[in-house]
Amino acid sequence: MSILHEKLDALFKPRSVAVIGASRKPGKIGYTILKNIIDYGFKGKIYPVNPAATEILGHKAYPSVLDIPDEVDMAVIAIPADKVLDVAEQCGKKGVKVLVVITSGFGEVGNKEAEEKLVEIARKYGMRILGPNIFGIAYTPSRLNATFGPPELREGSIAFISQSGALGIALMGWTYMEEIGLSAVVSMGNMADLDVAEVSEYFAEDENTRVITIYLEGLKPGTGKRFIEIMRKVSLKKPVIVIKAGRSKRGAMAVASHTGSLAGADQVYDAAFKQSGVLRAYTVEEMFDWARAFAYQPVPKGERTIIITNGGGVGVLATDAAEEYGVPLLVPSEELKSKLRETMPWFGSPRNPVDLTGQAGVENYVKALEVAYNSDEVDNIIVLYCRTAILDPLELAKAIVEVANKHADKGKPLLAGLVGGRDVYEAIRYLNRNKIPAYPSPERAVSSLATMLRYKRFREKLLKEHESKA
Amino acid sequence: MSILHEKLDALFKPRSVAVIGASRKPGKIGYTILKNIIDYGFKGKIYPVNPAATEILGHKAYPSVLDIPDEVDMAVIAIPADKVLDVAEQCGKKGVKVLVVITSGFGEVGNKEAEEKLVEIARKYGMRILGPNIFGIAYTPSRLNATFGPPELREGSIAFISQSGALGIALMGWTYMEEIGLSAVVSMGNMADLDVAEVSEYFAEDENTRVITIYLEGLKPGTGKRFIEIMRKVSLKKPVIVIKAGRSKRGAMAVASHTGSLAGADQVYDAAFKQSGVLRAYTVEEMFDWARAFAYQPVPKGERTIIITNGGGVGVLATDAAEEYGVPLLVPSEELKSKLRETMPWFGSPRNPVDLTGQAGVENYVKALEVAYNSDEVDNIIVLYCRTAILDPLELAKAIVEVANKHADKGKPLLAGLVGGRDVYEAIRYLNRNKIPAYPSPERAVSSLATMLRYKRFREKLLKEHESKA
Repeated sequence: MSILHEKLDALFKPRSVAVIGASRKPGKIGYTILKNIIDYGFKGKIYPVNPAATEILGHKAYPSVLDIPDEVDMAVIAIPADKVLDVAEQCGKKGVKVLVVITSGFGEVGNKEAEEKLVEIARKYGMRILGPNIFGIAYTPSRLNATFGPPELREGSIAFISQSGALGIALMGWTYMEEIGLSAVVSMGNMADLDVAEVSEYFAEDENTRVITIYLEGLKPGTGKRFIEIMRKVSLKKPVIVIKAGRSKRGAMAVASHTGSLAGADQVYDAAFKQSGVLRAYTVEEMFDWARAFAYQPVPKGERTIIITNGGGVGVLATDAAEEYGVPLLVPSEELKSKLRETMPWFGSPRNPVDLTGQAGVENYVKALEVAYNSDEVDNIIVLYCRTAILDPLELAKAIVEVANKHADKGKPLLAGLVGGRDVYEAIRYLNRNKIPAYPSPERAVSSLATMLRYKRFREKLLKEHESKA
Repeated sequence: MSILHEKLDALFKPRSVAVIGASRKPGKIGYTILKNIIDYGFKGKIYPVNPAATEILGHKAYPSVLDIPDEVDMAVIAIPADKVLDVAEQCGKKGVKVLVVITSGFGEVGNKEAEEKLVEIARKYGMRILGPNIFGIAYTPSRLNATFGPPELREGSIAFISQSGALGIALMGWTYMEEIGLSAVVSMGNMADLDVAEVSEYFAEDENTRVITIYLEGLKPGTGKRFIEIMRKVSLKKPVIVIKAGRSKRGAMAVASHTGSLAGADQVYDAAFKQSGVLRAYTVEEMFDWARAFAYQPVPKGERTIIITNGGGVGVLATDAAEEYGVPLLVPSEELKSKLRETMPWFGSPRNPVDLTGQAGVENYVKALEVAYNSDEVDNIIVLYCRTAILDPLELAKAIVEVANKHADKGKPLLAGLVGGRDVYEAIRYLNRNKIPAYPSPERAVSSLATMLRYKRFREKLLKEHESKA
């Protein structure tokens, strides 16, 4: 692992980046990538390479990578396909550690020979390759945005690996808007060398990543067993969430025509995910909902969950979702019930869901949360809110954050579901910014906790297996 | 039907409304309701009733409903429970047609006797009752917002019936933020008289409503058969989408403790919905996703669906969703394929999903949409977009609306799924404002079309049954 880790540091934490094919023309890929690297505030050195320029975007340009008077950790290659092999050769001679090959026109259009030669050259010089046929790589702790996607990215602890270019770029913009913080975005493309498993392995060790998300279309033939082995190890350290596209027959055909990779029978993938503890999501929204829960909150220690609400209706919806997704709702003891009863009006309900009623103010929520955090019967907390005239959602959000921070040492995950208009939306944002995963519906909060519980169960099972072997 | 309709016109299109318990104190329910009625611009006459005031919010106040020198179609009652019966008696004498009883403290807290007496009084005078224990009623074509929920509502053609108060109010705010246009919001409460079926029956005839949405916790005992009979008739005229809460065992218990209504075995409800053509949603978001499709687009005439995309990845996700939800993707003929090929770069794919590639501009989409609208092979169209640097999402949205309007007479539903950041979000809004149901993910567009197809199938089956009987 450590050798891999060191090598891939050149991909995520390069001290210097050459952009080969850097352009002065807005709209060109070689322009956008260089501009993104500069504008996002990359901490290392930046070397544009273009034989027809002496300066691009304020940086001295070099005719070739060999002319750069410094070590080059990473070379981003955005030149026509027929020139890539020569340039790769030069990079090898220069001692470049990793090639990020943006260029398309390789295996994905049947040009397998050139792709194999590219790999040969890399092997010869001990270089690693990301790509070809990708939109780039970003790693926010290095302030590195070497993509031709959007210029902005939120910093955070979710790593996102995408086997689709267009979707990956679109989701960069989407995560920014949704305030989803990322540690990395990695475009996989043809996976001539580096693949999903190896990149995940890096993130397993990465101190800036807490959860790994993957949009997967298909593994390369013959790499299935290795995928399972590696992902089991990765899952032990960090949760991995995957969307596997092409699960339907027609979807698999569409994958084949799209990336040329083997989609394979979906049951095979499903079994592989189960064996390796990989958490399978079915929509993009779901994947990032779950990821935020892992990014912000501790993995549950137990199963017993309490729901605290001010609306009976959302409480029922959450209860239905809990049964459907497999979240065990605790049955409060008489002692716990009597403590809860003190937090609510007389017509409230101390049963689970705990109904503080529409009359609930901030103080009712705070008291009920205190009881839940302090009770030995409670492992996990879901707090729900329906907009009422008497309880300002932002005030509630602030109080929730305060209580949660006070009890952070207890290791009990707290998730929130809030329903209402603009001010509720702002409260949801506030909670997420303060590391309380919050969603605009009760079901999405429950689904996220359910996934945390699935992960907890898998990890415990795996640890037991390890122990029994030892 | 027509007698019901006339009577309920007093609920939705009253010429005059008395607010009994109108208050001058902000924060009081009787204040908020009156203020909402005034501020939302109610077209009829407004009469505050309060023995301790001569004027409230600029309107002359009356000591009792009997003192109002005019006919009163609707009386909104927001006074303590122990005074409701007397006031109902007065309303009867006054000739009020419908009582909207906000007041709680009846059947839901065990006070069944008072609730029965209330119904008796109403029967005696030929009045109808909405409630008690409700947040009110809104009907946007009358500019009537007689609720203590948020003051604003978007006009539109979706009727929303809620058996939960807190959730209903919260969703008023949510629909406003999400720009979901409503014809009506009806709080059902204890359903002492008017129930979900009867209100739905009204909307079936209502020229301002295209689709009916219902948050349902449970029917009153003994009304199941009637529900099925009525809802079958309603479904023939308009789609009905329902969320039935309390489908899990624990959820059903929570319903019982929340509204006191019988949740019953979920299979019974499920069978009832299937028999009556009611479309069952599982989350609030899903319900309104589907409702927007019905509100904006025609019901499909056929099953054969085409997907047009600029991103392979979202195309695959949509294909998976199509298989899962039951949307048949057409296999294009050679003729159609050759026409589609002319709309895309050489490396695109004319198979379904039709992949215009990341190089696609507005003109590619417009050409492909023209082909789809003009082809006899195509019944339904799903258009997908991933944010790319070369295609501005708002420009695309404008072009889509133009093409769709041009071909509106063809009766082919068009739905859109767009993935990306802030500007994509704005494009989604633009599309929805212009009656193209648009969603931030491919799956949600497919799910909505799938529901339209389910509705189409049910209606055809039912029409056939009617024919064979005739």
